[in-house]
Amino acid sequence: MHNFVFHNPTKILFGRDTVNAIGSETRAWGRRALLVYGQTSLKRSGLHARIVNSLREAGLELIEFGGTCSNPLLSHVREGIALAKTHGSEVIVAAGGGSVIDTAKAIGAGAVVEHDVWKFFTGKRSIKATLPVTTVLTLAASGSEMNAGMVLTNDATREKFGFGHRLLFPKTSILDPETTFTVPVDYTVYGAVDAISHVLEFYLTASDPDSPVQDRLMEGLIDNAMTACLRCMDDPCDYNGRANLMWTATLALNGLTAAGLGRVGFPMHLIEHSLSALYNVPHGAGLAVVMLGWLRAHHDLYARRIAELGRRLFRLPDGEQAASIAAQTSLCLQEWLHRVRAPTTLADLGIPARDIPRIADNTRGLARIWRLRDYPPERVAAILHLCR
Amino acid sequence: MHNFVFHNPTKILFGRDTVNAIGSETRAWGRRALLVYGQTSLKRSGLHARIVNSLREAGLELIEFGGTCSNPLLSHVREGIALAKTHGSEVIVAAGGGSVIDTAKAIGAGAVVEHDVWKFFTGKRSIKATLPVTTVLTLAASGSEMNAGMVLTNDATREKFGFGHRLLFPKTSILDPETTFTVPVDYTVYGAVDAISHVLEFYLTASDPDSPVQDRLMEGLIDNAMTACLRCMDDPCDYNGRANLMWTATLALNGLTAAGLGRVGFPMHLIEHSLSALYNVPHGAGLAVVMLGWLRAHHDLYARRIAELGRRLFRLPDGEQAASIAAQTSLCLQEWLHRVRAPTTLADLGIPARDIPRIADNTRGLARIWRLRDYPPERVAAILHLCR
Repeated sequence: MHNFVFHNPTKILFGRDTVNAIGSETRAWGRRALLVYGQTSLKRSGLHARIVNSLREAGLELIEFGGTCSNPLLSHVREGIALAKTHGSEVIVAAGGGSVIDTAKAIGAGAVVEHDVWKFFTGKRSIKATLPVTTVLTLAASGSEMNAGMVLTNDATREKFGFGHRLLFPKTSILDPETTFTVPVDYTVYGAVDAISHVLEFYLTASDPDSPVQDRLMEGLIDNAMTACLRCMDDPCDYNGRANLMWTATLALNGLTAAGLGRVGFPMHLIEHSLSALYNVPHGAGLAVVMLGWLRAHHDLYARRIAELGRRLFRLPDGEQAASIAAQTSLCLQEWLHRVRAPTTLADLGIPARDIPRIADNTRGLARIWRLRDYPPERVAAILHLCR
Repeated sequence: MHNFVFHNPTKILFGRDTVNAIGSETRAWGRRALLVYGQTSLKRSGLHARIVNSLREAGLELIEFGGTCSNPLLSHVREGIALAKTHGSEVIVAAGGGSVIDTAKAIGAGAVVEHDVWKFFTGKRSIKATLPVTTVLTLAASGSEMNAGMVLTNDATREKFGFGHRLLFPKTSILDPETTFTVPVDYTVYGAVDAISHVLEFYLTASDPDSPVQDRLMEGLIDNAMTACLRCMDDPCDYNGRANLMWTATLALNGLTAAGLGRVGFPMHLIEHSLSALYNVPHGAGLAVVMLGWLRAHHDLYARRIAELGRRLFRLPDGEQAASIAAQTSLCLQEWLHRVRAPTTLADLGIPARDIPRIADNTRGLARIWRLRDYPPERVAAILHLCR
């Protein structure tokens, strides 16, 4: 095990009717609040009204900033920052999925500086302070509700970059599984795939794999994401199915899985970010495709780890060669992706194979920032060819 | 899954040479520090000198309070409180295992009130403030380094009571696995047993067992405690073995395992506390014995859960009746306890069977405070008879 620091100060309120606490949890951090949310579903479900009521009852002075889309845009964040500055917002409330929470975090970071917020993402400036963020989560997927990361797409340059800083942990996140009953099947699946990918990236790229305590934790999370997703597909209002998926997605990227693994990479996300940046495909949909291609490309290089995963997760036999078990592991994962009707090829996403060079080229920027020097465009292109 | 709040603000610094950070981590909370530690091992190993140097270099004004024993005593804590008050301590540093950390927490809670600290344990007073506590952990066992609990023995009344409050989370805990290289085999085992028991109590007594995400987490922790313990016995200086055991014990009781399980009981601890209170047996040694008796007493009542554990942990077959698998699960655990040379009977602890009524009677006080109404002395006695 490598040395690590684990310090996750986010307070989680989990369960039925916890949404009503958003007012008091937010009031603890300020009086003037900016409420960030997405398109239409929050109002349609009645959740918007519940949140606004709770915030108003707690004495918060509120302005609203709706319209965040999935793969949230830098231009939209800039508008939010301007609004927060004019309003003198003291605290940001995010009500939505990872895109909304990341937008809120970026507004909170950008509202306290004079320079452009994108400079954080390109590594040109570092975060010294932020406005506090509280959240009401409505999608089990990104883990942003309990981590210090955020991802934005620069709509001018078509770059989708991620960035992390310890000041970006939300203060309180409210996770009521009932708010996810209305999430459509495809987005439920994309969320589960996102959670699985978060665990998988660390599991496979860990620089010190002698951390069985972390391995068992990660295998358990992948196992649960797969089974809970199936439960939610069978019955979208299965409370415990939704609850298990929600908590799994949160634990999948809250710092716990990576503790002790040393330097980990995010190569699947590197490639997916370019798919989303160029074609605006849902993050989880892109990941389902990239995940399989990445695994196929690494049956030999990462044979031991992929096989270990397959033996634990899919009870594949002990005896055979690791590379063969690794290939079977990919097939088992592919089978599950088919079962949940996720896309598994670039064609499923409507992306033609002739675009592969362009996609590979788009990964350059993030590969530089994330220091993934071992992922030059040629290697990315080779992986993408296995996503066909 | 039941509603829950998860909010664990303790900062963990884990790994080699992290001990040197104790000075700066402590200085963040005050200038006048009380250093709490145990008997002789801290000085013998040279760790005491390293800690004192780091604290002094960080500009802390230090007084020392050594002498904490295992099953720490109320009388000793009262001395520490008097010293902290005289000294005007602003922060408490605990360097040791769970007993030392619990002593430090109790001093921190008692130093800011006028009434006796035992009133917290008997539920007569509630905690409103505490002195901040930082820790250097030297034993993988209790989990106190990342939780809000503490346990003390009242040497006058022979009562060993536990108590929890959110203000009791340590601010920073430093976990350097190398500090545990010198832990003797028996205490290494007792620590592993303690961690296993913490998980087992929640796993088996959860009021809502439909939380597979928690189940996989808990099974993984038990599995790892068992395997890491064997590694440490084979080679006490196996860094990764020690590291995995240390992190497992921390995760086993930091609030994560219990999230969503609803009301959980601590029946094995209830009974063990009386063994420690009356005979001063090491906590983990007592737990090894009680654990087996408790399982034997519940092969029928908790058949489904014990069998689930056995199937996952020991790969017991699916087909047979749950009660039969449950009995086999106990045997597998007993086999592991024999392998690590833990005591498995009251006789192994030197406790005669004729004392059972006295032990059962001693559990009354804690059963009342912990609201374990379904554990009257007769039931406890019946379990103890299965510990013979």
